[in-house]
Amino acid sequence: METEEAAGDNGNRTDGDPVTPGRIREAASRLRKVAWRTPLIESDTLNSRVGARVLVKPECLQRTGSFKIRGAFNRLSLIPRSERKRGVVAFSSGNHAQGVAEAARRLGIPATIVMPADAPSLKLERTRRLGARVVLYDRNAESRELRAREIAEESGAILVPSFDDADVICGQGTVGLEIVEEAVRGEIPLSAVLFPIGGGGLAAGSAVAIKERSPATMIWGVEPEGWDDTARSLRLGKIVAASGKAGSLCDALMAFRPGRLTFPILHRYLEGGLVVNDAQVAEAVRFAFSELKLVVEPGGAVALAALLAGRLPMPCGNIAIVLSGGNIDPATAASILNEDQESVG
Amino acid sequence: METEEAAGDNGNRTDGDPVTPGRIREAASRLRKVAWRTPLIESDTLNSRVGARVLVKPECLQRTGSFKIRGAFNRLSLIPRSERKRGVVAFSSGNHAQGVAEAARRLGIPATIVMPADAPSLKLERTRRLGARVVLYDRNAESRELRAREIAEESGAILVPSFDDADVICGQGTVGLEIVEEAVRGEIPLSAVLFPIGGGGLAAGSAVAIKERSPATMIWGVEPEGWDDTARSLRLGKIVAASGKAGSLCDALMAFRPGRLTFPILHRYLEGGLVVNDAQVAEAVRFAFSELKLVVEPGGAVALAALLAGRLPMPCGNIAIVLSGGNIDPATAASILNEDQESVG
Repeated sequence: METEEAAGDNGNRTDGDPVTPGRIREAASRLRKVAWRTPLIESDTLNSRVGARVLVKPECLQRTGSFKIRGAFNRLSLIPRSERKRGVVAFSSGNHAQGVAEAARRLGIPATIVMPADAPSLKLERTRRLGARVVLYDRNAESRELRAREIAEESGAILVPSFDDADVICGQGTVGLEIVEEAVRGEIPLSAVLFPIGGGGLAAGSAVAIKERSPATMIWGVEPEGWDDTARSLRLGKIVAASGKAGSLCDALMAFRPGRLTFPILHRYLEGGLVVNDAQVAEAVRFAFSELKLVVEPGGAVALAALLAGRLPMPCGNIAIVLSGGNIDPATAASILNEDQESVG
Repeated sequence: METEEAAGDNGNRTDGDPVTPGRIREAASRLRKVAWRTPLIESDTLNSRVGARVLVKPECLQRTGSFKIRGAFNRLSLIPRSERKRGVVAFSSGNHAQGVAEAARRLGIPATIVMPADAPSLKLERTRRLGARVVLYDRNAESRELRAREIAEESGAILVPSFDDADVICGQGTVGLEIVEEAVRGEIPLSAVLFPIGGGGLAAGSAVAIKERSPATMIWGVEPEGWDDTARSLRLGKIVAASGKAGSLCDALMAFRPGRLTFPILHRYLEGGLVVNDAQVAEAVRFAFSELKLVVEPGGAVALAALLAGRLPMPCGNIAIVLSGGNIDPATAASILNEDQESVG
């Protein structure tokens, strides 16, 4: 199994602003041989549906099936070599799990992942296949965070947060960096960029990268109904939690609140939060399938759902959206695809 | 509706070799603003399954959902402006139909497409949506070629063949040109490239482009069982027809024989033909879905199927495959995805 060198040995950062364009560029250079540079793709049908030019960043095509490898590898490669034998532990419903497992495999670090027993079976299976030890917990009875902290304390493993960590945020920010680089190179001024939001790592890091090069671009976060903690927090100007009572198709976005690190960045740079319901998400998954020929998981499709449902105020100019992941069970996908047949027939 | 200028006015070519690397490069420059440059993507799972590095060219992401826009636009843009009002007519099970319809729309040319009544409904609907007049025929009772010729004679419209035309072949060859350009740029010597084969336009044009830059690369064509006319013709060194009696999942590849123009090129440049059955094709469609996060129609998945089924002799080095189209009905896709569940459960 291959192992890779860390680009630097500064494991913990306390100096100055932890999420800067410069640090996102450093992350990009660490990720050069690990994360694929996903293209920006287009669809005539999408453009005419929205009435604007839409550039789609398909992170479902990313290694491990979501953008999460970016933050995970950036974070893990910054663990000093002397500390790597301690191992890492993470909790995740599946995409961060695979990102951490793959990053750990590449760096030769043992990984333990705490996952909900009801996570999509594809995500459980893939995480194991990447060589991680998977510990299941009951989503309704236990706190996965607590379980992960226990494991960290017992074993001495290093906890890798899924979003509230500067190096994770900088890694995810390389998605936004790639978008803005392509747009600048193609002389395509971006009026708006839409990101799915769980804990906000992707949107926060990407906003920092985009705003540096293109300050006039409006950044929006999109969340599923019942899990709109970031939209509400942005409106109130302070962190509030989601009710967390509702179920959601979007297993990847069921975060209870924005992070202590992500929220101030989101508050500074985002126009606001948009909210979509399960029916709109399912329609977006079907649209991605039929029109974009892309497999997108529900949580990965919320930005597309917001556009298709007309949630973005005054869509115009050039809009970019991120399809953040594609890890959906085939049976779930088949049932979403068939739903439309049923409602038509 | 936008119209575009022809790059030249030489509608019919009789001088010298009609399919040359230079003419494929001319086609590429005509297509620069029309066909998207699809990326080469990778999957760790695919690489380890095959035991070689596999670069996937997803033409399912292409405008109209398949590579066919390339040949159609190249051909139509070479119709002299004075002749365009005559209109064009084509016969196709769906992908060439959409390619011709979209190219005609862009150039302001009226288009009539003869399609089998049992073509996938998505393909029928899309062709109409692009503004073409669709004439249905009964696959079992009539010859679509005859029907198209009748329409051409009655109306004076120009017949646009789906593969046996030099300008169509040169347009499809831009797929191979892009593959070899990327490989050369990335210093990735290609040991083999696999193409789906219906009438052979894609493989023939692409082989000419690839062999010029990379003569040692082996080119293979892949066909569905029962429709292996090219594999058999290559073995016999002369054109023989498929039995055409068997059904196939691969509606896009049910061509009875290689073309008079395509066959000599295929015979010169191809190592041979590989054959896959419906079960192998269905597995490839599922693999593309789960592992590549790409929607690929059965006919578009045969090269992947050949690799996964171990049909390629001695796979090693760097192999490129083309996923040639993604126009599959959601209900058909759902049933292919569910098949696996059933066989497991």
